[in-house]
Amino acid sequence: MSTIPTATISRLVTYLRILTSLENQGIKNTSSEQLAEEAQVSAFQVRKDLAYFGRFGTRGAGYTVPTLRRELRRILGLNRPWNVAIIGMGRLGQAISDYPHFEQYDFSLKACFDNNAKVIGQTMSGHQVYGMDALPQVVKEKGIDIGFLTVPQAAAQAAADALVAAGIKGILNFAPVVINVPREVHVEPVDFLAGLKRVSFYIINPGLKEELA
Amino acid sequence: MSTIPTATISRLVTYLRILTSLENQGIKNTSSEQLAEEAQVSAFQVRKDLAYFGRFGTRGAGYTVPTLRRELRRILGLNRPWNVAIIGMGRLGQAISDYPHFEQYDFSLKACFDNNAKVIGQTMSGHQVYGMDALPQVVKEKGIDIGFLTVPQAAAQAAADALVAAGIKGILNFAPVVINVPREVHVEPVDFLAGLKRVSFYIINPGLKEELA
Repeated sequence: MSTIPTATISRLVTYLRILTSLENQGIKNTSSEQLAEEAQVSAFQVRKDLAYFGRFGTRGAGYTVPTLRRELRRILGLNRPWNVAIIGMGRLGQAISDYPHFEQYDFSLKACFDNNAKVIGQTMSGHQVYGMDALPQVVKEKGIDIGFLTVPQAAAQAAADALVAAGIKGILNFAPVVINVPREVHVEPVDFLAGLKRVSFYIINPGLKEELA
Repeated sequence: MSTIPTATISRLVTYLRILTSLENQGIKNTSSEQLAEEAQVSAFQVRKDLAYFGRFGTRGAGYTVPTLRRELRRILGLNRPWNVAIIGMGRLGQAISDYPHFEQYDFSLKACFDNNAKVIGQTMSGHQVYGMDALPQVVKEKGIDIGFLTVPQAAAQAAADALVAAGIKGILNFAPVVINVPREVHVEPVDFLAGLKRVSFYIINPGLKEELA
């Protein structure tokens, strides 16, 4: 199998969300046309995205909702629990550790880390805060897969290096800086202000807002 | 003009980011094919997205980078400053008020609000924290256009109602709950854990990761 565009993976996440909504409504069958309309892409794009992973559905009959949903969860690795650690228990790290929908997709917060002696050993959101020196051992003992990097910009690369050295394979990077990691580690940058650039469009064009069904 | 798909607006933001990068590299001309490749959509999609807003570029000759970039900034409303207020100065509100790249796109934090008597009147990240009762007056005096809703889930709808009553036309909603607003107000939900669902894919499929140029 060749490499897969990252945009395809983002769209699979969108298709999964749509399928979950259809399943919750008790709808049993769907089509590339319906998924395309809901995801605001072309039906050709839906079929092309799915074709990277095999053959789903039947020509003319479309897709069975629970089957395709299960397949997408398997493809995306969402059919198993993932253990998460937060690196950097400043304001952002604390805010995220409080996030109520954290475990929505089988992601479980297992540990928090900081390098500030004042917070190491404290309990935050029900989790003991470890020092960064404990990272390799805690990652191993608690089976941590993914790190949330919520340290200040200047500390981000060193913290990412420590995560990589500890064997972490996925990083959600909240620091507004590009971090360098080996190819086998995946970094997902989080730009929580991205939506701001759409808000201004809708403020100046209130009449162009799409009607939601 | 009819309504515009929200996905088109998101893609315009992506095209603008690509054009800014091309301009920074000193590249003067581009094409729908190049924009499509960078944005991971089809060239037809690029042309269709732009066609909602007029005719750009020349058949066969493509687009002039600075011109198309300027047009997209105008279309997205990014050619003027926008004034922002944060509603809810808990951990998340404080973390966002500290965000160093805040003013990258001419968005300017003008005021912070909370309903906790302990923080009202205090200065946080250089901004005085106002009580929610001051919202209508401060929004008017400081010309605030956009509100960041960083209150707890249970307080989100009431805070949104207050923003709407004060005349705010755009809301970035960080609370993990759907809020109801009149049609002329645009709400952009922020799901800062969305990237998590892509991380798991790349952890289980390290070999399928796209090579970045």
